[in-house]
Amino acid sequence: GKKVLIVYAHQEPKSLNGSLKRVAVEELSKQGCSVTVSDLYAMQFEPRATRNDIVGCLHNSEEFNYGVEAWEAYKRGGLSSDLIEEQKKVQEADLLIFQFPLYWFSMPAIMKGWMDRVLVQGFAHEFPNCYDSGLLKNKLALFSFTTGGSKEMYAKGGISGDIRYLLWPMQHGIMHFCGVKVLAPHICFAPEYVSEEKRKEMLIAWAQRLKTLWKEEPINCSPEWYFK
Amino acid sequence: GKKVLIVYAHQEPKSLNGSLKRVAVEELSKQGCSVTVSDLYAMQFEPRATRNDIVGCLHNSEEFNYGVEAWEAYKRGGLSSDLIEEQKKVQEADLLIFQFPLYWFSMPAIMKGWMDRVLVQGFAHEFPNCYDSGLLKNKLALFSFTTGGSKEMYAKGGISGDIRYLLWPMQHGIMHFCGVKVLAPHICFAPEYVSEEKRKEMLIAWAQRLKTLWKEEPINCSPEWYFK
Repeated sequence: GKKVLIVYAHQEPKSLNGSLKRVAVEELSKQGCSVTVSDLYAMQFEPRATRNDIVGCLHNSEEFNYGVEAWEAYKRGGLSSDLIEEQKKVQEADLLIFQFPLYWFSMPAIMKGWMDRVLVQGFAHEFPNCYDSGLLKNKLALFSFTTGGSKEMYAKGGISGDIRYLLWPMQHGIMHFCGVKVLAPHICFAPEYVSEEKRKEMLIAWAQRLKTLWKEEPINCSPEWYFK
Repeated sequence: GKKVLIVYAHQEPKSLNGSLKRVAVEELSKQGCSVTVSDLYAMQFEPRATRNDIVGCLHNSEEFNYGVEAWEAYKRGGLSSDLIEEQKKVQEADLLIFQFPLYWFSMPAIMKGWMDRVLVQGFAHEFPNCYDSGLLKNKLALFSFTTGGSKEMYAKGGISGDIRYLLWPMQHGIMHFCGVKVLAPHICFAPEYVSEEKRKEMLIAWAQRLKTLWKEEPINCSPEWYFK
């Protein structure tokens, strides 16, 4: 069975994001996958990249450089235990699903903090091992999110621009950089402004997609896909 | 004199980001501006959007919706005091400068949390008051940041794509959405990989730019600027 890590960022279990997460756990488990969830708000996950992430002495205590310190700490097994735990989950996973409501054209800060702190140099990338040769190659990622704005607002020529524009930093800048192949995003537009029935259809569509997920080809994660 | 708020996210005062922040405070003060700094790490600024941001009872305690609760709390003066404090600083400012190291094609989580929590509906925007009629119109913003990657990597056709691609969510999705006009970004490429002398030149160039900043025209914040 495949291993899946769902990194989930919503405060409310009864939200559509909560339901989308549950649907994924159910459907993937039914397929025989082993599914782990990092429920970031429930874990009170720390988003701030600070000296607390490094156990013991610093490599350079004169001038704190987070990237260098996290890299050095990773190599000697000196990262804080919450980070080691998350890295273990990532290491074991074949597929990472990020489930969140879009905040300001991006992920909520608590999830950005997961990226900032978990994907350290040495673990997820290490020059020249980035992009296609990133250290997390052979894994897949999928961004599944809800929006406030409508599909029309996020169309090419719409007031908020093509939704793909805002996927570039997340899909290319983070996942592709680490060597992870990216599946097409799963987007529920403006669930707060549609009927309860429409929201149920959104859950069914997600469950439906998950049934054949392992047959999907990753996107071609290059500027053409985003900005053609 | 003009009022400037510098939102600053670096752990180390001796860093180049720390120096860029100091240079801005000095140069703008010399011009007679009144300058306020929100030093996010020093403040241990909370990046997580949670129920703690709402003082007193919830609008809907059955199902927590952060956006709705923050909006309702704003209207009745019931946001947590750290948010009220930041909103006051924003309200008074003519110019917002965001000073940070680029983390994963975006701002560090602690600064994303500032955006998520401070720029609430009712304060920064309120449909149909968004984009050109956003509630923070008549203000300017400038993103000033350092990168890990070189200028060549962030060129059009470079491995990380045009640096402008990653500015879209921050400049258009956040600032323009709130009605703020955006000045050209100030980017110091790969300061960790250049000489001490080159880093000094970067500080001088920033001070130099600030001397005539108030004469600058905002960019035309439309897809053409980013993706031509």
